[in-house]
Amino acid sequence: MRAEQTSPSLVNEPPYFNSFSSPNRLLMGAGPSQVHPDVLKVMSNITIGHLDPAMLVMMDELKDMLRYIFQTNNSMTFPVSGPGSLGMEACVNNMVEPGDKVLICINGVFGGRMAEVTRRAGAEVVTTEDDWGKPVDPDKVRKAFSEHPDIKHMGFVHAETSTGVLSDAANLCQIAKENKAFIIMDTVTSLAGVPVQVDVWGADAVYSGSQKCLSCPPGLSPVTFSDAAVKHVENRKQPVQSWLLDLSLVSAYWNSDGARTYHHTAPVNSLMGLHEALRRIVEEGLETVWARHRDCQQRMVAGLLELGFEMLVDEEFRLPELLTVFLPPDIEDAPSRTLLLEDHGIEISAGLGQFAGKLWRIGMMGEAAQLENVDKLIGALKTISR
Amino acid sequence: MRAEQTSPSLVNEPPYFNSFSSPNRLLMGAGPSQVHPDVLKVMSNITIGHLDPAMLVMMDELKDMLRYIFQTNNSMTFPVSGPGSLGMEACVNNMVEPGDKVLICINGVFGGRMAEVTRRAGAEVVTTEDDWGKPVDPDKVRKAFSEHPDIKHMGFVHAETSTGVLSDAANLCQIAKENKAFIIMDTVTSLAGVPVQVDVWGADAVYSGSQKCLSCPPGLSPVTFSDAAVKHVENRKQPVQSWLLDLSLVSAYWNSDGARTYHHTAPVNSLMGLHEALRRIVEEGLETVWARHRDCQQRMVAGLLELGFEMLVDEEFRLPELLTVFLPPDIEDAPSRTLLLEDHGIEISAGLGQFAGKLWRIGMMGEAAQLENVDKLIGALKTISR
Repeated sequence: MRAEQTSPSLVNEPPYFNSFSSPNRLLMGAGPSQVHPDVLKVMSNITIGHLDPAMLVMMDELKDMLRYIFQTNNSMTFPVSGPGSLGMEACVNNMVEPGDKVLICINGVFGGRMAEVTRRAGAEVVTTEDDWGKPVDPDKVRKAFSEHPDIKHMGFVHAETSTGVLSDAANLCQIAKENKAFIIMDTVTSLAGVPVQVDVWGADAVYSGSQKCLSCPPGLSPVTFSDAAVKHVENRKQPVQSWLLDLSLVSAYWNSDGARTYHHTAPVNSLMGLHEALRRIVEEGLETVWARHRDCQQRMVAGLLELGFEMLVDEEFRLPELLTVFLPPDIEDAPSRTLLLEDHGIEISAGLGQFAGKLWRIGMMGEAAQLENVDKLIGALKTISR
Repeated sequence: MRAEQTSPSLVNEPPYFNSFSSPNRLLMGAGPSQVHPDVLKVMSNITIGHLDPAMLVMMDELKDMLRYIFQTNNSMTFPVSGPGSLGMEACVNNMVEPGDKVLICINGVFGGRMAEVTRRAGAEVVTTEDDWGKPVDPDKVRKAFSEHPDIKHMGFVHAETSTGVLSDAANLCQIAKENKAFIIMDTVTSLAGVPVQVDVWGADAVYSGSQKCLSCPPGLSPVTFSDAAVKHVENRKQPVQSWLLDLSLVSAYWNSDGARTYHHTAPVNSLMGLHEALRRIVEEGLETVWARHRDCQQRMVAGLLELGFEMLVDEEFRLPELLTVFLPPDIEDAPSRTLLLEDHGIEISAGLGQFAGKLWRIGMMGEAAQLENVDKLIGALKTISR
């Protein structure tokens, strides 16, 4: 008898735990954001096969809704089966070949991460650096292109989650196009919070995350690739270093003209949840969603200034969906965040990178962007600062 | 005023769709498998932050339960934030450096995929090849090691999802250890269906998937790395090509002795679901779970043989949780699978790779492994073959 057919003695004692139950939370940090109960309900539909006819219809609808939200007609538009950082790798690793010169614009943690991912793709990385809290400086980008006429790709973060800064994507894309570079754009925190206009700007490889203004649980990364980008990937000299992320393979499942075929087993239930989250945005309408974020920002800024908080970011570049604020002297960082979480059930985020321990990140993303939530947080902060 | 602050005219009409609702399905294919309602219910708990204190407790419990199910004491045991193929990349890309010679044993689609992933990691890949439907031949593995004494890693698939074959993991691991090679093992379809004994066998980098015998929705890939593997990764000359998968970085979130810190935003709700799915296995007990799979296999094989199906795999190497069967002359492949799905709500899987259109894959994985489900499928097949 073979070893596997007997029951071997077990190495470990079985560890018994209770079922998990979430504490009640209002998510007003840098993500994940609040998820609507309908999204959670649809996500918990019974699991079906990744090639079920009902699934294939749902996938087509998902793609249509993503195109609307990305403001693109790109055929190659789908959610990568992993978090935003995997979407970043999907964009970088498909577009960039070893030895390519790539310009990455850094003004926070996520620009830095993109540079690191790009280096790991074997590229020669050139960077522009801007102070954290400032947008990417178009003049530095122009200068980088004139100093390095062989730059093949430019990557930048539209909305820096570490600083709450919005960069001028239209302008940056224009500069890249004048220099015939492909554009890789991070819209993790911008998508559905502020206008993202993939086609108007001409961005080539764009990724986002499910857990910010799309208000879906974390774990999926919507991406969109221009036709030129898809052609570029098809003509690569070397295969994409990730098999899972290789556009030319994953398209058999997500973007086939004929029968869809198996590539990997897609995260069926997570996709159901994303379908419902996108559906809610489409129903509300993008312009209304953007306005809702702006209204919340206005009320939140007024309340925070009154309590003695100071804004890191100038009004002109300040994200509606994510504020970065220095604390007044009567509020301590970690103990106050704990109080907010434990006594008020409200999560906000600490500073990241060079801002760790120095500021707070307060999000009003997606479903969390409601005036009543702003009032709740301001009210809770008042009890703490007293 | 900046362009982003105005509401630009929209490129696309909003596409309106209804909320998604799953058709009723019994999943008896090659995965995803049936998910228990409790798992779906826990998965739809409200979303909380990836660094919420409640989340950190849940993550520790998850790791403990994974250690029991993997039969290991490995500290570095956690679910990768993506599907099984990403788990495969996590194991290969962390262990293998460009230029390493790696032996991959191929006896089906997934061994072939592992070879491709390993090539893309820059390795020199040596393979053994066995007929599809046969296990990996230990003699060929011994021969490969003697012909290539510089092999640094050996990779193989414990249970081939494309053929329903179980290979002798204990023996293969023994050969690799005698040749001082690291062992990369695919347990996507074996884990919790048949004994997987990571520590007893001495496997170094092992991955699985949430959607087979763990009976969880697809989208997570549990992995475990031996201490020697972790040390090996720490001493790499070149960084891991994927930032997301780099063990030395992701461990700050999943395996820190001190405060857990942000690496990427983990798929919070999917992890809640996995927690419940693992909890159910722990409560039932591994040995009982294995026996349940064996009992179902016995009944299913008897029923299928009676209907004129023929088994691809000899009994000795036949997976309890996944049968590969050639069709009797009175049953057509695609139309019959459609009938099963549409009239009976039962999903089974088509052949994969060289078996496409030639056989069926019938799964009794995890929650689906119930005698009543076996009877349901056999009953449905009787109406079709009549």
